[in-house]
Amino acid sequence: MINNKNCIIRLSRYKNALVRFKTLGFIKIFSEYLADAVGGTSAQVRKDFSLFGISGNKRGGYQIDALIAKLNSILGKNEVQKVVLVGAGQLGSALVRYNTFEKEGIKIIAAFDIDPAKINPKAPTPILQIDEMARFILKNGVRIAILSVPDSAAQQTLDMLVKAGIKGVLNFAPIELKGTNDCIINNVNLAVELENLIYFVNVTAKATV
Amino acid sequence: MINNKNCIIRLSRYKNALVRFKTLGFIKIFSEYLADAVGGTSAQVRKDFSLFGISGNKRGGYQIDALIAKLNSILGKNEVQKVVLVGAGQLGSALVRYNTFEKEGIKIIAAFDIDPAKINPKAPTPILQIDEMARFILKNGVRIAILSVPDSAAQQTLDMLVKAGIKGVLNFAPIELKGTNDCIINNVNLAVELENLIYFVNVTAKATV
Repeated sequence: MINNKNCIIRLSRYKNALVRFKTLGFIKIFSEYLADAVGGTSAQVRKDFSLFGISGNKRGGYQIDALIAKLNSILGKNEVQKVVLVGAGQLGSALVRYNTFEKEGIKIIAAFDIDPAKINPKAPTPILQIDEMARFILKNGVRIAILSVPDSAAQQTLDMLVKAGIKGVLNFAPIELKGTNDCIINNVNLAVELENLIYFVNVTAKATV
Repeated sequence: MINNKNCIIRLSRYKNALVRFKTLGFIKIFSEYLADAVGGTSAQVRKDFSLFGISGNKRGGYQIDALIAKLNSILGKNEVQKVVLVGAGQLGSALVRYNTFEKEGIKIIAAFDIDPAKINPKAPTPILQIDEMARFILKNGVRIAILSVPDSAAQQTLDMLVKAGIKGVLNFAPIELKGTNDCIINNVNLAVELENLIYFVNVTAKATV
């Protein structure tokens, strides 16, 4: 088990870049190209790959198809990953319809909400009552959830998810949730990302006046 | 100028946590509480604050109101930050209506799209033709843009934005864009975040079988 989050994020990025190179007609690729595509160094690319026993050919580089297959296998993408989403508000609904997930082999198989007006079991991705969530997760063996509820409901919803057997949560609620031994949390706080950008743009502007 | 991205991200998180503590009726707070709320250590909290000349009182802790005001000033939030969004698809539309941005003093003042069917200058956040973008950015002195276009259009759109004077971009297109001296990029790749989570949940499951 390679326990380095940044390394896994880079593998995802290499894989996305490889898919694009393939679309452009490439059959083989050098680590330098991949490094350039994701903004790293070729030494880093080779080091990341070597951790998983992937080696290229100094003259010919890496075979793109074989490399994509290997990365998909490492990233657990040989089968479709079933995911549930909790909180079918504006952001949640957009994530349900976000076709990049499907392209990446990630399928949101149901969404859950507390608001009766949002319930729609017949939608392409059914939107169900939150009471049905635990049973649904168990029945379908779902281990990953996307959380897009208001911050005030986030911790309570997380507790329900963990109790139902969820092992990983991508959290969009604007509150920092903490992982446990039983469940990994990836916090994506869009307002924090934007604030961070605003800070650097502002300080750069001041520095150049 | 404090040039440490992680430190700024932590300041954003402290500030969000402080707002929540304030809602709960707190007037003062100790670094330990803040550390606990964002998942760090109290030493880190004090170190981050000291970089900006903020010091607490060993007995009484920090005054919440004064601390929020100071953090808002550091993060450039004393005034509303005007932002444009490019790409009014599912995700872009959700971001336009994402009320957490408004709560944080970030206002998307216009969205732009290439699809004539999406144009709606009379919407609460007007959706305008992409031809009008450069003039709009210049006229309104906008420096920050959110990019939510397909990956195939991302680089070209970025070039247009930089030419129009944009200094910071929050990129949701599923492609890694690179910043320049003129423009900072924050890449938020939702599929990569989710893949990363899937990887760790899978390896943990394998390790415990």
